Amino acid sequence: MTIFVDMDEVIADAYNAHIEIYNSEYEAKLSAEECHGKEVWQCVPKEHKESIMGHAHRVGFFQSLKVISQSQQILSELCKAHEVYIASAAMEFPNSLKEKSDWLDEFFPFIPWQNRILCGNKFILKGDVLIDDRSRNLTSFEGRSIMFTSPHNVNTTDFERANSWEEIAEKLL
Amino acid sequence: MTIFVDMDEVIADAYNAHIEIYNSEYEAKLSAEECHGKEVWQCVPKEHKESIMGHAHRVGFFQSLKVISQSQQILSELCKAHEVYIASAAMEFPNSLKEKSDWLDEFFPFIPWQNRILCGNKFILKGDVLIDDRSRNLTSFEGRSIMFTSPHNVNTTDFERANSWEEIAEKLL
Repeated sequence: MTIFVDMDEVIADAYNAHIEIYNSEYEAKLSAEECHGKEVWQCVPKEHKESIMGHAHRVGFFQSLKVISQSQQILSELCKAHEVYIASAAMEFPNSLKEKSDWLDEFFPFIPWQNRILCGNKFILKGDVLIDDRSRNLTSFEGRSIMFTSPHNVNTTDFERANSWEEIAEKLL
Repeated sequence: MTIFVDMDEVIADAYNAHIEIYNSEYEAKLSAEECHGKEVWQCVPKEHKESIMGHAHRVGFFQSLKVISQSQQILSELCKAHEVYIASAAMEFPNSLKEKSDWLDEFFPFIPWQNRILCGNKFILKGDVLIDDRSRNLTSFEGRSIMFTSPHNVNTTDFERANSWEEIAEKLL
């Protein structure tokens, strides 16, 4: 079975990084809980939106992301049973490309370069399962689309859902 | 129709760049003609092989590649008629990722980030046509595989072939 796994919000915690940077730079106390159902930039005063939109363009942003709980252990098991590819829509952020490669080297060294994809649209992926947090990617996939829960997507009901990597393990191992 | 187009040897002239760098650094007179049917590293003394293998890891190598003749004009036309994606097996060379994105911005600005793919294996591409210079990529593709002629692949007879971008235009426009 060929399984595609998104990076941000699935194995890399970009959402909480946005909140942490915002709180630190604006002396704010935003929490993931109060952002439920929204993007982080939708939860701050309008005049701060651009600052949050700029995080992904900063050097070091993607390099410093924390690993989503249990994703390393369970992906390592999945790789023994299936063909696992990392597929990240990273081409929008050219400065992130090397950082994402380095980040995978550091935290997911068992996924070799042959199985890494940095792309734009995900329409073009051919395989059996896509684990992603974005409706736009899951909708166009030909196989089994699994929405990985992230604060921004909690109100979406259109897809099979996994709330954690433990739930991915139950489904696919 | 969804068309995938490889970078090196199809739109970017890496082969002649290897020869130029080698000739310059070793005061040699290697020509593309005498390399026909081989990789450049197979055409030099054994003790120089590693030097050539190292070119792709050098900062600036991919940024400085020349554009393959007529690829800009004809890809620009193809983009008006079809869904065109650039698909490069670049993940082996992490330093090349940003350079390849910048190079596309410079020479193929009409192909947006949504239509760019930096990957490893190309087994995972879903579409109608793949234009590539490597048998290993063309073999696994589910659609129409077109081998773009490069000095190293002239003796391969396994695939439909295009010797130039003009021939691609005749086939696909």
